[in-house]
Amino acid sequence: MSEPLLSPDRFFAPEPAQRRIARELYEGIADLPIVSPHGHVDPALLADEDATFGTPADLFIIPDHYVFRMLYSQGVSLESLGIPRRPDAPAGPASETDHRKIWQVFADHFYLFRGTPSGVWLAHELYEVFGIRQKLTAATAQAIYDELADKLAQPAFSPRALFDRFKIEVLCTTDGPADSLAQHRRIRESGWPGVVRPTFRPDAVTNLSLPAWKANIEALGAVVGREITTARGLVAALEERRAFFKSMGATSTDSGVETPYTETLSEHDAEAIFARARAGKATPDDVRRFTGHMLLEMARMSVEDGLVMQLHAGCDRNHNPLIQATFGPDKGADIPIAIEWVRSLKPLTDRFGNDPRLTLVLFTLDETGYAREMAPLAGHYPALRLGPPWWFHDSINGLARYFDQVMETAGLYNTAGFIDDTRAFVSIPARHDVWRRTSANWLAGLVVRGMIDMAEAVEMAADMATGLARRTFKL
Amino acid sequence: MSEPLLSPDRFFAPEPAQRRIARELYEGIADLPIVSPHGHVDPALLADEDATFGTPADLFIIPDHYVFRMLYSQGVSLESLGIPRRPDAPAGPASETDHRKIWQVFADHFYLFRGTPSGVWLAHELYEVFGIRQKLTAATAQAIYDELADKLAQPAFSPRALFDRFKIEVLCTTDGPADSLAQHRRIRESGWPGVVRPTFRPDAVTNLSLPAWKANIEALGAVVGREITTARGLVAALEERRAFFKSMGATSTDSGVETPYTETLSEHDAEAIFARARAGKATPDDVRRFTGHMLLEMARMSVEDGLVMQLHAGCDRNHNPLIQATFGPDKGADIPIAIEWVRSLKPLTDRFGNDPRLTLVLFTLDETGYAREMAPLAGHYPALRLGPPWWFHDSINGLARYFDQVMETAGLYNTAGFIDDTRAFVSIPARHDVWRRTSANWLAGLVVRGMIDMAEAVEMAADMATGLARRTFKL
Amino acid sequence: MSEPLLSPDRFFAPEPAQRRIARELYEGIADLPIVSPHGHVDPALLADEDATFGTPADLFIIPDHYVFRMLYSQGVSLESLGIPRRPDAPAGPASETDHRKIWQVFADHFYLFRGTPSGVWLAHELYEVFGIRQKLTAATAQAIYDELADKLAQPAFSPRALFDRFKIEVLCTTDGPADSLAQHRRIRESGWPGVVRPTFRPDAVTNLSLPAWKANIEALGAVVGREITTARGLVAALEERRAFFKSMGATSTDSGVETPYTETLSEHDAEAIFARARAGKATPDDVRRFTGHMLLEMARMSVEDGLVMQLHAGCDRNHNPLIQATFGPDKGADIPIAIEWVRSLKPLTDRFGNDPRLTLVLFTLDETGYAREMAPLAGHYPALRLGPPWWFHDSINGLARYFDQVMETAGLYNTAGFIDDTRAFVSIPARHDVWRRTSANWLAGLVVRGMIDMAEAVEMAADMATGLARRTFKL
Repeated sequence: MSEPLLSPDRFFAPEPAQRRIARELYEGIADLPIVSPHGHVDPALLADEDATFGTPADLFIIPDHYVFRMLYSQGVSLESLGIPRRPDAPAGPASETDHRKIWQVFADHFYLFRGTPSGVWLAHELYEVFGIRQKLTAATAQAIYDELADKLAQPAFSPRALFDRFKIEVLCTTDGPADSLAQHRRIRESGWPGVVRPTFRPDAVTNLSLPAWKANIEALGAVVGREITTARGLVAALEERRAFFKSMGATSTDSGVETPYTETLSEHDAEAIFARARAGKATPDDVRRFTGHMLLEMARMSVEDGLVMQLHAGCDRNHNPLIQATFGPDKGADIPIAIEWVRSLKPLTDRFGNDPRLTLVLFTLDETGYAREMAPLAGHYPALRLGPPWWFHDSINGLARYFDQVMETAGLYNTAGFIDDTRAFVSIPARHDVWRRTSANWLAGLVVRGMIDMAEAVEMAADMATGLARRTFKL
Repeated sequence: MSEPLLSPDRFFAPEPAQRRIARELYEGIADLPIVSPHGHVDPALLADEDATFGTPADLFIIPDHYVFRMLYSQGVSLESLGIPRRPDAPAGPASETDHRKIWQVFADHFYLFRGTPSGVWLAHELYEVFGIRQKLTAATAQAIYDELADKLAQPAFSPRALFDRFKIEVLCTTDGPADSLAQHRRIRESGWPGVVRPTFRPDAVTNLSLPAWKANIEALGAVVGREITTARGLVAALEERRAFFKSMGATSTDSGVETPYTETLSEHDAEAIFARARAGKATPDDVRRFTGHMLLEMARMSVEDGLVMQLHAGCDRNHNPLIQATFGPDKGADIPIAIEWVRSLKPLTDRFGNDPRLTLVLFTLDETGYAREMAPLAGHYPALRLGPPWWFHDSINGLARYFDQVMETAGLYNTAGFIDDTRAFVSIPARHDVWRRTSANWLAGLVVRGMIDMAEAVEMAADMATGLARRTFKL
Repeated sequence: MSEPLLSPDRFFAPEPAQRRIARELYEGIADLPIVSPHGHVDPALLADEDATFGTPADLFIIPDHYVFRMLYSQGVSLESLGIPRRPDAPAGPASETDHRKIWQVFADHFYLFRGTPSGVWLAHELYEVFGIRQKLTAATAQAIYDELADKLAQPAFSPRALFDRFKIEVLCTTDGPADSLAQHRRIRESGWPGVVRPTFRPDAVTNLSLPAWKANIEALGAVVGREITTARGLVAALEERRAFFKSMGATSTDSGVETPYTETLSEHDAEAIFARARAGKATPDDVRRFTGHMLLEMARMSVEDGLVMQLHAGCDRNHNPLIQATFGPDKGADIPIAIEWVRSLKPLTDRFGNDPRLTLVLFTLDETGYAREMAPLAGHYPALRLGPPWWFHDSINGLARYFDQVMETAGLYNTAGFIDDTRAFVSIPARHDVWRRTSANWLAGLVVRGMIDMAEAVEMAADMATGLARRTFKL
């Protein structure tokens, strides 16, 4: 093969002066450790020295909705990709269990990922992490499957081995409010030196619209040892659980909401809504107001206990009822929606926006708010920071749009560095590499346009790679 | 003249490495045939071997609202450009009938088109299609008029001759539901081998707010041979006409709506609204709901008869009442508005989004939906494809924004290739050339940034030029 | 120091062919006079030959909310920056009065402005206007303070001397409806040849939500010599004041509104709302409707008296109640919001959009309207022109987005050139220089992509630098 499968200058602008500077900046940060303040890796992977990733299909396809939603959009059935059907799914074909067949379907359609971030990450994983030396195609699929399966069986490719090889300094997971953090405890007690921290995510009990909400409340009640029958009781339970998470190493929380609406409910209204929810009678307006109220409560608790607060907004989840009924939630049918920050967040900023004890990191799926609302908000309120591009927008162009639209108004130092937010453990270095390369390229563009000098660029590159994330998340 | 009027490298990035690759990719697709799945060319132009385009003003100015709206915005009266006044227009000056004078006004103001897509297309038409060898200015206007008029009188510049010279493989027109398709029949029966297909556009009878709605319903009733007095009757008539259009070669339908709102009305509600409309008492809410209901009906019919469904949304048409009263509708006063897709389209995607028999191609005038809503929708639902940039956004920068904001999330293969959507027949090659050049330049950018390799780029370029349009529209 | 603090090629694309052309175009316009049709410079600065700018902190920090909001967002207190507290402010530390200390805090945090427009302007002011030859850092702060203080005491750095050195051809201020324009009179009567014109800004009396509205109405009544007790009386007073402003050299008005909503109120409704406002009982809906009504009245008056009308929309002002209570309004807590133009402006365009006597210049903080609404509106209505990027968007990238999203559809000649809109007098040349450089770079991009030729680019560059502003504002 005459040219390498991964260009050493990938994602850099082609103009030679900018490319030379981008490369120089990148070389200065490429080997820095990885700080991962938020993501969805299952801690069980790291709790056991002998844990493995399973087959190539287990690793690359079955759990990754980024991957299978693209194939589905082109008419490939989720059953043929081995996505498990719900026990109560409507009648239909069984899911494929032969992982070689699943892999072949994936390889047959690998061209669909041309020019996409999934394509970029998969290439990094195959050709860099696993050292595959030929392009994945229909013809090479089975040989590559063999090679991957062989490597996945080796200790050098165990989760812990890769954790070290990836130079992960700290990895934060995301955990429900009733979670015992048993896997985190096992990691700590195992003597393995890797740093894995939990993150407190209360959505399961603050989002009244979830079908499992009542069950979630009961589970939380069981964990705190008393039935939760009031909003006040819920708040007390959350405070207790935050303290526990903090004792287990957590430095932040995370809330995922459809819109960033906030509101301070009177005690009477909060209790009335909670009571309606318990009776299964919460209205959509109840859901919205209670979620907004709980965001304010979470901010208040952060002021008190110092946990950094993350807020992810702008997604209409599980848009496709057939997919949800057949395969369950979170199966690639989540669609961003337009959201509003300025009025929505005002009750929260009015109370806590000037408080130096709060750090609130905002994430959006609606890029139109970058320059219009989010950068001006973060460029004023001491409590606010902007998270990096999230989900669909964590891509080569999405990062460029973020740099273009956010940085001039917010300033680099009101941003939070990079957050990979992935459940695909082996994609972590791929995602950080894309961020570091596009960061270096952005800074090189500022240098060649005379907006910053090289000394400034070197400092900024290091901050973008690790410093901002470390400081924002108190890691 | 030392430099050519059209640069051979126009629209390519200036950086030499990217430009070299862009040129190479472009050369591979520049001479492919033109597939034109949707547009507004009058089939009468091609029905008669001896049809001509008229004068240069008839060809370039009078029918082209892209052109005269720009002149009007700078204080040039539409009368001076020969735009015909309505018989019932308010008092005012007569429209100019001397086409040489009209042409001179156009030439005097040709500088207004600097850097605009109209300027790009007009340059292609003048300097490439008609071989004019001097810049159009006030001074050269009359000489160029002479040369154009001379050529327009030659058989080599007849519509059919240009159809062949442009290498048009297939051209689809847009036709009302009551249209007899007589011109299409004449084309078929003439023995001329050019392929011209109709497209079924039901708006005249599904948009209750049109002043001519009742007359349109009557015309449709006359064509199907029975009075249409109910919503059910309207649906039956549409089914019948779709079958007729299909028999005449149609492979698609087109609906133009203000917003993509959809809703399944109960039979009772549909009939009640229809009755109110017949009585001239439809409310704005009736209009919105009935349009949304008919979109669902159109989707259902597409599932049944296999016609591809196009949906164009996001335009506030005829915004200027003075222009409408004086010159009629569609005179350059159409303004895009913000629209929402995720909730609006959900009734339709819930019913048909997973159905492999449906292909629904979405077009927007609100670019903020590209990355936020449309690409994620098309990147999930098998039935959805994204049309190319439409109208105002079919421009050099508009295409670049589309590539930037759509492709990473939707993937190239969930897009529908290029659709010129023009009523200006001689602009067809200009528009496809802009698409092919900007496509080649975009792909070259991916190559030089190491995201795809050259073999992939070559395949993708050919798909963008013709393959995607052919497959999406079943041509 | 081996490299200059300001690159001679700053803000130009790095690609050599484009950069060479950009530099050539820029050199042709760099020394043109400055036409400043709208801004917030205090005319008192120029009314007195001996006026000075005060200390470096007085000049660069204390009055500039662009500067101190960025420092505040990173935890620097406004008190430490010398921002004066309101007499009725809540308890808190006194504001710093030692300007050397303030300067040191600023210098300590100067890195926050890396890559921001404020950073670019400050660099121009320090290194170009004041000839500082070392980078501002914590270490150099006091030496630079000395040098600046020394120069600020020299006649060569007086406001009038800089006015001449900056080659300001005309400078327009912004003045309240009750303003006596005494400073403008002093300038005229001083014999100094600088041209300074007032601009009529009626917001103080048309925005019913202002706490000072009643006082403002009384002040206006005092100036016109009769109590204003009705909407009709207000309109008459505005007409009288416009005539006075015009007699004092004004060529334009300016209205700043949250949204561009317009409506023609009946006389009855207008008077009823006015009466409620006088009684302190105006509702939010009253505020919105009355503002919309007054916009229509302002447009009507412009048709009659020929003053150009400016409309700035899209800002939620004074978002932070703590900052407002402590330091007053306009202290860096203004946040853009989404706005809608197409339906909002329709009552105005219906009445006056086709009137050649009206020039209405639109400004927005919501960039999503550029390509979707504003460019199509300006590309149709003879009365409409688009102002340049405003406030947060008057930045290197903001200008590039504007050129990208506006010019193809509106055409260059429906834009209004550059407007610096600054209250920071010494930033005027910096802002125009950024515009001229980014304009030259944009035009160079069109040239290298074969969209315009060099002769066209030269004409367009000159129009962008001065011609469009002169013609639009009748200067």
